[in-house]
Amino acid sequence: MLTDPDVADSYARDRTFLEPGKPLGVVLAQNRDEVVATLRWATEHRIPVVPRGAGTGLAGGATATDGCIVLSLHKMTAIRELSPADEIAVVEPGVITADLDRAARAHGLMYAPDPSSFEISTIGGNLATNAGGLRCVKYGVTRDSALGLEVVLADGRVLNTGRRTVKGVTGYDLTGLFVGSEGTLGVITQATVRLRRAPLAPPTTIAAEFASLHDAASAVSAIIAAGCQPSLLELLDRGTLKAIDDWKNIGLEPSVAAMLIAQSDATDAENAARRMEALCEEHGASFVAVSGDAAEAEELIGIRRLAYPAKERLGACLVEDMCVPRSVLPDMITEIEAAAVRHHVRICTVAHAGDGNLHPVFIFEHGLTEPPPAVWAAADEIFRTALRLGGTLTGEHGVGLLKRRWLSLESGPVAEEVQAGIKQVFDPLGILNPGKAI
Amino acid sequence: MLTDPDVADSYARDRTFLEPGKPLGVVLAQNRDEVVATLRWATEHRIPVVPRGAGTGLAGGATATDGCIVLSLHKMTAIRELSPADEIAVVEPGVITADLDRAARAHGLMYAPDPSSFEISTIGGNLATNAGGLRCVKYGVTRDSALGLEVVLADGRVLNTGRRTVKGVTGYDLTGLFVGSEGTLGVITQATVRLRRAPLAPPTTIAAEFASLHDAASAVSAIIAAGCQPSLLELLDRGTLKAIDDWKNIGLEPSVAAMLIAQSDATDAENAARRMEALCEEHGASFVAVSGDAAEAEELIGIRRLAYPAKERLGACLVEDMCVPRSVLPDMITEIEAAAVRHHVRICTVAHAGDGNLHPVFIFEHGLTEPPPAVWAAADEIFRTALRLGGTLTGEHGVGLLKRRWLSLESGPVAEEVQAGIKQVFDPLGILNPGKAI
Repeated sequence: MLTDPDVADSYARDRTFLEPGKPLGVVLAQNRDEVVATLRWATEHRIPVVPRGAGTGLAGGATATDGCIVLSLHKMTAIRELSPADEIAVVEPGVITADLDRAARAHGLMYAPDPSSFEISTIGGNLATNAGGLRCVKYGVTRDSALGLEVVLADGRVLNTGRRTVKGVTGYDLTGLFVGSEGTLGVITQATVRLRRAPLAPPTTIAAEFASLHDAASAVSAIIAAGCQPSLLELLDRGTLKAIDDWKNIGLEPSVAAMLIAQSDATDAENAARRMEALCEEHGASFVAVSGDAAEAEELIGIRRLAYPAKERLGACLVEDMCVPRSVLPDMITEIEAAAVRHHVRICTVAHAGDGNLHPVFIFEHGLTEPPPAVWAAADEIFRTALRLGGTLTGEHGVGLLKRRWLSLESGPVAEEVQAGIKQVFDPLGILNPGKAI
Repeated sequence: MLTDPDVADSYARDRTFLEPGKPLGVVLAQNRDEVVATLRWATEHRIPVVPRGAGTGLAGGATATDGCIVLSLHKMTAIRELSPADEIAVVEPGVITADLDRAARAHGLMYAPDPSSFEISTIGGNLATNAGGLRCVKYGVTRDSALGLEVVLADGRVLNTGRRTVKGVTGYDLTGLFVGSEGTLGVITQATVRLRRAPLAPPTTIAAEFASLHDAASAVSAIIAAGCQPSLLELLDRGTLKAIDDWKNIGLEPSVAAMLIAQSDATDAENAARRMEALCEEHGASFVAVSGDAAEAEELIGIRRLAYPAKERLGACLVEDMCVPRSVLPDMITEIEAAAVRHHVRICTVAHAGDGNLHPVFIFEHGLTEPPPAVWAAADEIFRTALRLGGTLTGEHGVGLLKRRWLSLESGPVAEEVQAGIKQVFDPLGILNPGKAI
């Protein structure tokens, strides 16, 4: 347990601008029994516990509160089992997402969920937020890869959920309930996850430039509606591209308002890519490149993964995360652009466009611990629009602290009552990550 | 509301041998408001309610209890929306599973989950049991296709869960919690489900005959481990084939101990089928046929879909449903055969083998309302073996009444406490399908 205030502070933050409270201390758990001991002690003394992976969250789910214990799982890094025959792995929560993927690749498999932070984020954090990523347009989100969990409950009891098999309906779906619950129901100390076959050949990648963001979004809707089944379909707006260009000099042309990056990893990847190319051209792309070269593809996707750090250089960021039905993506993009103009705020948007999952990033002055009112006003407008269009407040980042102000717009009173009831079952004293998620 | 005892009795049973209790009456709900009215009344009078779709369940989940109201949803058959652009449908619970699939096919889409009963089962029943099926080896189970639900709670409150988008993490995963909860937490009155692209070309199908059941199971494990990604991989043992042959004369050879039926619907389906053919031959298949002909494929799968009705002709059936990790399928098959010999019981096994999901069907004398002790003893042994091998008690049929005797072997006390707590949140009076599922 670390109690030095400066050290503790570094475990008190995630990647948001939110100023954390002062924790009592930080427990760096090495194994399940230490998690049990921590939670028993916390229950006995009614001390709030804020569980934490690598702190790469974007919604304040791991932000420490005053007087809490931060319970970090990042030292529990064992991959306990990897079974190629059953296509599963059993891992501790501190395993880095990309490390599990690499371990699986050695057997012709992959761990599909790949949030942009996957080189630094942990499986436990991914489970807590039901993280998405670039590949989930084809392979689903973290919940779709979670088969079973070992969870320590608030009072120290150890609960095993789920199974090692690909199917199973014994009892209620407790695994799914814990995934995305942001540490408010228990602390995950082990996960059995599903692996998938890695594609045999390198993917075919396309990059398309558009003079209009709306056109790019229309191309996305068309690609989905045509059944091209991309394994990745990302959209970057001019603001995002400019931020990356200013940093890494990617040779951005003045006329480019948006870029789509798409991939197919199907066995007929080139055909699929050619169909996507044609649809981009039909929807006004000014330039489309198609490549089967793995290094070129990695470079393009590398650009995409820079989107967030590039924006952090410009200012403090409120990173938003709505998801809309894919057919209304062009409408949502139009509304985001309009809100930026109306409220005079700077919004750079990057999107897992194939899922309808948009990340409008509101940029404001470095050093501010709270976005200016105009940012909140624009965000509020955008969220209401997303809901009106049949969307949701968060596609993959979670609710944390940041989304709670809008939660009741989406959930409604009955869902809130029910969720409070479930919270009460698992954590009657309310010590687990209080004030988050619900 | 129907109260004639003979009519009510026909709504009191599912497809198990279980003798139901005498319901007070049967409500044939036409819409959500009638479900609300029924549940409010039931809450007021503390009357148990047994929700019901088409009654095709195989675990007693819809078996009526004495003095209950049977609440049938089978008249709520509207497909309210089908959006090809967003690849979703919004349906009432009484929609026949295959009808939704056909409606989707008209737009180049499909509804993937296809339990063997899919021509007569309802979406609501499929959701209640988290039904699987033949295609779920590639496309997942019902939960993987459920995005959002409208649910009437025990006291008549209406809860909306989930969303219309493909991703979303707002609040706890209530959708997943209701799927597979067998009507014990609420009554589903509407579902938003995910549709998938239907394959463009007809699948390639293989049928392989084996002189040993263990060899056939070994071929299955090899096919999965080799990453062939079949869209269907079914195993039928000799007892099953014989029952079908006696009924429909399929020309079964005396030497055939097992048959595998596999399909690939990938764009390189023929390659995948050829790889599966080679693996079957390596594992001792005596005969393998490969065909790209759609009519032949339909015929073969038609044979598979006869497995259960063919066995019902032989006697009363205890249909079991364990799921094991796919690598241990041969061991599980061996143990089932040994248990049949040891206890002198007749077991015919059919399996969604690609998922490790086995249906050993115990056949006993027609007219008995309870299997003889030897059947229970053999079943008990087989379940304990499945759990020892890392498996689960039920892959897709649910717990209902039939599996409750083994439930605690799998769930353990903490999971049971937690599940009882969740039940209490949704149904504090315990009127919803009492005695089922947990």
